[in-house]
Amino acid sequence: MAMVTGADYLKRIAQLESTIWIDGEFVKGKSTEHPAFKAVLEAKASLYDMVLDDAHADILQASDKNANFSFEIPRTKADLTKRRKATQLWAQSTLGVLGRSPEYVNTMIAIMAGAKDFFAEDGKEYGESIQSIYERAVKNDYTFTHTFVNPSISRKPFYPDGESVEQPVAAKIIEENEKGVVIDGARLLATQGGITDELLVLPSAAFVDSDYLFGCTVPSDTEGLLFLSRPSFGKETQFDYPLSATLEEGDAVVVFDHVFVPWERVFMYRNEWLMSQLFARTGIEAFLLYQAANRQIVKTEWLLGVAQALVDTLNIGQHTHVQGKVSEVIVALEAMRGFVYSAETQAQANEYEIMVPKLEPLKASACYFQMTYARLIEIIQLLGASHFISAPSKKDFASPIAGRLERFMRGEYTSAKEKTKLLRLARDLSISEFGSRQMLYERYFFGDPVRVASGLYHFADCQKQKYVEWVQTFLKKMD
Amino acid sequence: MAMVTGADYLKRIAQLESTIWIDGEFVKGKSTEHPAFKAVLEAKASLYDMVLDDAHADILQASDKNANFSFEIPRTKADLTKRRKATQLWAQSTLGVLGRSPEYVNTMIAIMAGAKDFFAEDGKEYGESIQSIYERAVKNDYTFTHTFVNPSISRKPFYPDGESVEQPVAAKIIEENEKGVVIDGARLLATQGGITDELLVLPSAAFVDSDYLFGCTVPSDTEGLLFLSRPSFGKETQFDYPLSATLEEGDAVVVFDHVFVPWERVFMYRNEWLMSQLFARTGIEAFLLYQAANRQIVKTEWLLGVAQALVDTLNIGQHTHVQGKVSEVIVALEAMRGFVYSAETQAQANEYEIMVPKLEPLKASACYFQMTYARLIEIIQLLGASHFISAPSKKDFASPIAGRLERFMRGEYTSAKEKTKLLRLARDLSISEFGSRQMLYERYFFGDPVRVASGLYHFADCQKQKYVEWVQTFLKKMD
Amino acid sequence: MAMVTGADYLKRIAQLESTIWIDGEFVKGKSTEHPAFKAVLEAKASLYDMVLDDAHADILQASDKNANFSFEIPRTKADLTKRRKATQLWAQSTLGVLGRSPEYVNTMIAIMAGAKDFFAEDGKEYGESIQSIYERAVKNDYTFTHTFVNPSISRKPFYPDGESVEQPVAAKIIEENEKGVVIDGARLLATQGGITDELLVLPSAAFVDSDYLFGCTVPSDTEGLLFLSRPSFGKETQFDYPLSATLEEGDAVVVFDHVFVPWERVFMYRNEWLMSQLFARTGIEAFLLYQAANRQIVKTEWLLGVAQALVDTLNIGQHTHVQGKVSEVIVALEAMRGFVYSAETQAQANEYEIMVPKLEPLKASACYFQMTYARLIEIIQLLGASHFISAPSKKDFASPIAGRLERFMRGEYTSAKEKTKLLRLARDLSISEFGSRQMLYERYFFGDPVRVASGLYHFADCQKQKYVEWVQTFLKKMD
Amino acid sequence: MAMVTGADYLKRIAQLESTIWIDGEFVKGKSTEHPAFKAVLEAKASLYDMVLDDAHADILQASDKNANFSFEIPRTKADLTKRRKATQLWAQSTLGVLGRSPEYVNTMIAIMAGAKDFFAEDGKEYGESIQSIYERAVKNDYTFTHTFVNPSISRKPFYPDGESVEQPVAAKIIEENEKGVVIDGARLLATQGGITDELLVLPSAAFVDSDYLFGCTVPSDTEGLLFLSRPSFGKETQFDYPLSATLEEGDAVVVFDHVFVPWERVFMYRNEWLMSQLFARTGIEAFLLYQAANRQIVKTEWLLGVAQALVDTLNIGQHTHVQGKVSEVIVALEAMRGFVYSAETQAQANEYEIMVPKLEPLKASACYFQMTYARLIEIIQLLGASHFISAPSKKDFASPIAGRLERFMRGEYTSAKEKTKLLRLARDLSISEFGSRQMLYERYFFGDPVRVASGLYHFADCQKQKYVEWVQTFLKKMD
Repeated sequence: MAMVTGADYLKRIAQLESTIWIDGEFVKGKSTEHPAFKAVLEAKASLYDMVLDDAHADILQASDKNANFSFEIPRTKADLTKRRKATQLWAQSTLGVLGRSPEYVNTMIAIMAGAKDFFAEDGKEYGESIQSIYERAVKNDYTFTHTFVNPSISRKPFYPDGESVEQPVAAKIIEENEKGVVIDGARLLATQGGITDELLVLPSAAFVDSDYLFGCTVPSDTEGLLFLSRPSFGKETQFDYPLSATLEEGDAVVVFDHVFVPWERVFMYRNEWLMSQLFARTGIEAFLLYQAANRQIVKTEWLLGVAQALVDTLNIGQHTHVQGKVSEVIVALEAMRGFVYSAETQAQANEYEIMVPKLEPLKASACYFQMTYARLIEIIQLLGASHFISAPSKKDFASPIAGRLERFMRGEYTSAKEKTKLLRLARDLSISEFGSRQMLYERYFFGDPVRVASGLYHFADCQKQKYVEWVQTFLKKMD
Repeated sequence: MAMVTGADYLKRIAQLESTIWIDGEFVKGKSTEHPAFKAVLEAKASLYDMVLDDAHADILQASDKNANFSFEIPRTKADLTKRRKATQLWAQSTLGVLGRSPEYVNTMIAIMAGAKDFFAEDGKEYGESIQSIYERAVKNDYTFTHTFVNPSISRKPFYPDGESVEQPVAAKIIEENEKGVVIDGARLLATQGGITDELLVLPSAAFVDSDYLFGCTVPSDTEGLLFLSRPSFGKETQFDYPLSATLEEGDAVVVFDHVFVPWERVFMYRNEWLMSQLFARTGIEAFLLYQAANRQIVKTEWLLGVAQALVDTLNIGQHTHVQGKVSEVIVALEAMRGFVYSAETQAQANEYEIMVPKLEPLKASACYFQMTYARLIEIIQLLGASHFISAPSKKDFASPIAGRLERFMRGEYTSAKEKTKLLRLARDLSISEFGSRQMLYERYFFGDPVRVASGLYHFADCQKQKYVEWVQTFLKKMD
Repeated sequence: MAMVTGADYLKRIAQLESTIWIDGEFVKGKSTEHPAFKAVLEAKASLYDMVLDDAHADILQASDKNANFSFEIPRTKADLTKRRKATQLWAQSTLGVLGRSPEYVNTMIAIMAGAKDFFAEDGKEYGESIQSIYERAVKNDYTFTHTFVNPSISRKPFYPDGESVEQPVAAKIIEENEKGVVIDGARLLATQGGITDELLVLPSAAFVDSDYLFGCTVPSDTEGLLFLSRPSFGKETQFDYPLSATLEEGDAVVVFDHVFVPWERVFMYRNEWLMSQLFARTGIEAFLLYQAANRQIVKTEWLLGVAQALVDTLNIGQHTHVQGKVSEVIVALEAMRGFVYSAETQAQANEYEIMVPKLEPLKASACYFQMTYARLIEIIQLLGASHFISAPSKKDFASPIAGRLERFMRGEYTSAKEKTKLLRLARDLSISEFGSRQMLYERYFFGDPVRVASGLYHFADCQKQKYVEWVQTFLKKMD
Repeated sequence: MAMVTGADYLKRIAQLESTIWIDGEFVKGKSTEHPAFKAVLEAKASLYDMVLDDAHADILQASDKNANFSFEIPRTKADLTKRRKATQLWAQSTLGVLGRSPEYVNTMIAIMAGAKDFFAEDGKEYGESIQSIYERAVKNDYTFTHTFVNPSISRKPFYPDGESVEQPVAAKIIEENEKGVVIDGARLLATQGGITDELLVLPSAAFVDSDYLFGCTVPSDTEGLLFLSRPSFGKETQFDYPLSATLEEGDAVVVFDHVFVPWERVFMYRNEWLMSQLFARTGIEAFLLYQAANRQIVKTEWLLGVAQALVDTLNIGQHTHVQGKVSEVIVALEAMRGFVYSAETQAQANEYEIMVPKLEPLKASACYFQMTYARLIEIIQLLGASHFISAPSKKDFASPIAGRLERFMRGEYTSAKEKTKLLRLARDLSISEFGSRQMLYERYFFGDPVRVASGLYHFADCQKQKYVEWVQTFLKKMD
């Protein structure tokens, strides 16, 4: 096995018996045939097929040809470069809008396995757990989603109507025995919840009651595990909503209803200190940011293409303010590329001999893209302008009024139909519910921007101190 | 007649036989029962009922108690104050999001009738036309939409497939005879196109080929008149989309397929000079901006309410950055109110003895709101943040998972259901297709913001010159 | 007396024996002849002369012709209108850049005297104090500065070198006896410190140790009172620095070195509750904001004049981005005017029968201008662009190179000298130390913008609540 | 020779007999002793000494140890890395605020010499010219300034008073003979004009009358060459103005009054096509941007140090909005670093075997920094806030009021004097005339930001087209 075809992947996912609720209904039957999930699963299947395509094998397969690139633990800068190209290649196939491209969580699994000694500091069984999780994932060519954010009101006790027993809100350990632990409560926002092979669970913070501190993976169809998915933003017609119709992936609240997790799936347990070190010492923070930045580069390239296509089609390229807006997209694109080159060039091997991209530029990239993406989308809106209001639909062009549309709504150099197709794509990127969710997704990808900025402020303490000393030394000489 | 009930209004609209196409289908039967139009027509019907409600009669009825306020020609500053209150009262009933509240175009008709001598400068029959249009509108308590923007590619000749005869793109006069004129071609973006009693047609610019220069009204179901409506953003469930489900009004391209307009409906004809003076001399520009500003005040009040409700429900009011964002909404609200008070205080009677609000602050208000509305909506997005991503639906709360939602998604002081209702309203205002169209609507209400700003620059020439002279005088003394 | 000439005013100020230190030197002799103060005092003298000028008497004199307008307590809306015109007229004479135009503090004194019953709530002697302060000010046609901000480190105890006795940092009561109180410590930032007749002292906050709670006035040359002025930004050459050379007013730290204040000058004393009510109940907050907004309107008119003069001189008016920038200034100007009209139209008499402008729009105006002024200045910078870098000086034009400057640096329609004069004015407004201090002054006029915005958030609680209820009522109907 | 000491350098500059006018006066005697130039020349002398310092020799000397790094033509990526470090090291010594660090123009000379075959396309004598210019520069360890911008009104003919002969405005060829050419007219904005060894002259644009098309170097004290310097922003006291007092470099208009340039100094002549290719084909555009970006990185580090020092000293680090502002500086710093790493990683050898950094990220960096620097400075202003208004001076601390200043103006953890020193540095960076000129300098470094953005838009045509095609391909599949 180890590298499966898209068809095999779909077959496997079809066999999953996850408990998913969406828009008030229980998802019966195969998720691969459900209107909310079919398109995204097919998009992911095509990623699997790409791996097996000779044209991409050099980049998308691990060196041992036994897994896709995401499971390979980088040891050299060349490994990082390959990983960048692979991530960007997959992202091109999904336009950079797919939040849970398989390598996102796969990489976390791989890096944690690479740093298994880290987990073993608390007992060698934890190192063995992460290693076996990794091996199983490689062997089966798994996909994961993950979840770590607690419900916002988790501080308040919850007593269901008429009962006096408090029920947990945030997922926590409520029982432990020889074989494993029992988890009860919920976590927020698993993207593609229920339609990945497994779910990776990590704590949301280190310094909390130890009942909340555990790291594990569970199959999506584990007994007691429920995915409460938001209503789908998917659409049927590709002409009208080309992105919603093909790349909507869904988000879910994950409920653990007395879910039993055997010890061999637990790799971190009630250990504040390890948890507080996890992201930095293993390198997963850098790798998560690195994947995201590479995906965002492709997304920005796509945005640049859409922006310029609008400019060409609406024939507005002669205006300096239009040129200025497109230039903003170009600057953002080069800035994102720069963060990535910077991280690669300054990469260093960590204590586990994993070649980790430099964290500083990547943290800055997260902060930058959070602030910038909304502006990029605004630029698309400003270029499309009032053209977005009255874009006709596929059905309009198939109706008796098609001739009128051609007469009255054509572009300078394009037919009304071609122009409309582009306008509807640009709308789907910038003002449909799918597009709006993308904006929220990028804005809150690493958390509330105010807190992310504060995080960067503290993270940079050391660097800041160096420059403060420079200032102080300079001032001493001034008199 | 003169002031009809909501029920009478709906009955009348139901009898209209407009030709409307929407999403590839011809609208058969009564528009009042069509899913795309039912809700907005009922919302408008309730405005009619308000007029007849004793509680509002002082404000919503004209002084002669024979028409609603919108048909009354203001002669004093007190008339303006009454008009402000009336517009705001109606806007409250429709949350400030209804673009074509009946008084919008009614006011144009009334002011043009008040300035009938303006049109009569070109022949007294034109003055009589606008007067009789007005009288008919008052007598029947009509509603209108209007259209003046040309298709964007109107400069290029259009030859349908296989034919050698050019067809007009922008609507133009193609024939005239004793009884009237024949119009062929299209105009863009009639809001509520096809579901108002009549359509007001004005030229898009003054200095063009005179074939394009005509002002008239026609009943919506005139022969040859087609409304090509964009797909509806309406939704069925009020819980999930409270605005889309109740206030979506539609926009249409208006096609004139050899439409015959009798002379008694034509009030301006092939007259460049009159057209170039129309907006300023009659006062309609000021009145249109005045109506819009008053509506936008109410919309901003509504936004402030939604913003603060989010702050309370999400319990985030202690953060200074949250306070700062809400303060921005307050500043915008007071700024809009100020523009209106400024325009009223400085109002002056024009040559037709119409009391016209001062144009300067109103033009500034248009420019200001265009720049500000998108930021206000962004503030709603930033306050709702990732809560917007996974808001459940009405069906979710009616399903077996309702208990889980209450347990995991409730607010600090509210049930999950109440919290979700608010979040879905805020989403519908800021990220649904309805909300996104609102943003486009405000941004392009008076045209491309870059051009509106340039317009203001030129409009203020006189004032600017005064201050330049002040500077020059000052500089002469400096040596 | 009651209305003095500019010459009399200068004579009186020349006799003041204030203790002022500036740039390390004690100011000996007459302040009216000191390079740091001469220009601003002459500018103020010209305001006195304007009052006596028949051309302005209607506006600048009180109704009883016995004082300038600033001492008149407004009782009607017409009084407010007169006050607006008067403030704007004086501001025109000083280009809106003079922070301490005499009416600023005079108005506080007048309004407090009008509300003397407020102070008398704590003992009738306090009401008498403010009344006699007011009467003396009217009789002598005084000018004041005021101070209420504490030094930033006032929380930390201060022990001078080698001593064990703590000294006060923020000015506080350290002794009281039959005749009065003794004050020791400092207050920050008295504009024109030491060169006004008297100094008004108010607490910086209500809920502090009562030693800090006192309101009084003292003559600027009271024994023990020191003004530590910052180095002057004044310049000698009007050609090179037209504003710095004529309107630099200075700022000082005020030190009370055991200053004795007799009871008849104390109008508020150790009363938390009165202090917490002072600004709102007497109306002084509204009047301070009203004066500031009117001054800022004139300043914005001046900025508009400078902006357009740059556009004309540099011949850049054809660019839409240039037009857009000037339009921003116009919008800001109309917004500020709107706030003022709004406050006047909604003015109401308070419990002391003072006609008080509506506070809401004025608080919004403070917040708005704080946020906007820096952008207006940036617009001046962007219009002047690199022309600001190499502007020659008066001496250059008087030297042998003058001919070369005319040849190489002239404008499209102006001589090099005229062009340079304008550029130097624009520089002085936007990038000289004088101009930079103006920016800081406007930005921090009512305090740290973050705190001002938070203040507005809380102030608007009542209004916000009303709109939240509207939202809640609406949501109840949605299902 | 080839690498001289700072003392030798100063001695050489002291012997220059340049004709400089400043603030209406002719500069007599040695520029090294003139108050306007002394400080900056000493700062540059210290750069020379650094080169000879063993501690820096590896980085600051060329590989052949025969010149400083700036004269070395990069052949490998390692050469670029060395160059980056060298530029940053010199920039650290001058805080990144020195616009004409010697390597800026030296690099142009070196790269042009490396691409001498480019110039030789028009005749081998031109290749020989640039080569000999380079060799002389290396041999003598020269510094240069350069100039290419024409006076803004150069299109209008200029007739001096009473004469009928038109005089050139922009510098142009007015005569040519066997020995060389004669130039008459002016160029704008030579930084450090008159105090560098030589002046590099390049055309401002390619497609103009060929009289304006020439490239050459001339010694600063060439007969007929005049430098009309703007008034100095220099200050005497380092305590009060630490940057103005040490790093003010001056800007001048350069007048060519019938300046004779021998052919051996002319390397480009009346050749439109070569001129239009110059920047791109030789690589100098990339190298200029590369030097600038590296200098700006150091400047941003310095700004970060000042920002954090303010935060520490004013004890405001606990506020999230303060943290957010400092984070913006960090993001800008990492972005600038990223552009440079990106340019290095993607560098390629050009047709002259010069290793040229990738132009795309560097052009984006110019656009980015232009837009960002003003915000960084605003952040310094917002952190210093009203503390900037009343900062005392060195004289104040040497006067009898020093004790009072310590008592009332000290910081939480610092003395008033230390706190003031930092505040005055921050003021000098952000609101003094020196600081304001820095802002103008960065904003207009590569020209009007609107035009720079348009330039980037066009430069990226190829890349944009690629992404447009991606969009078109995608759309073809949507139906």
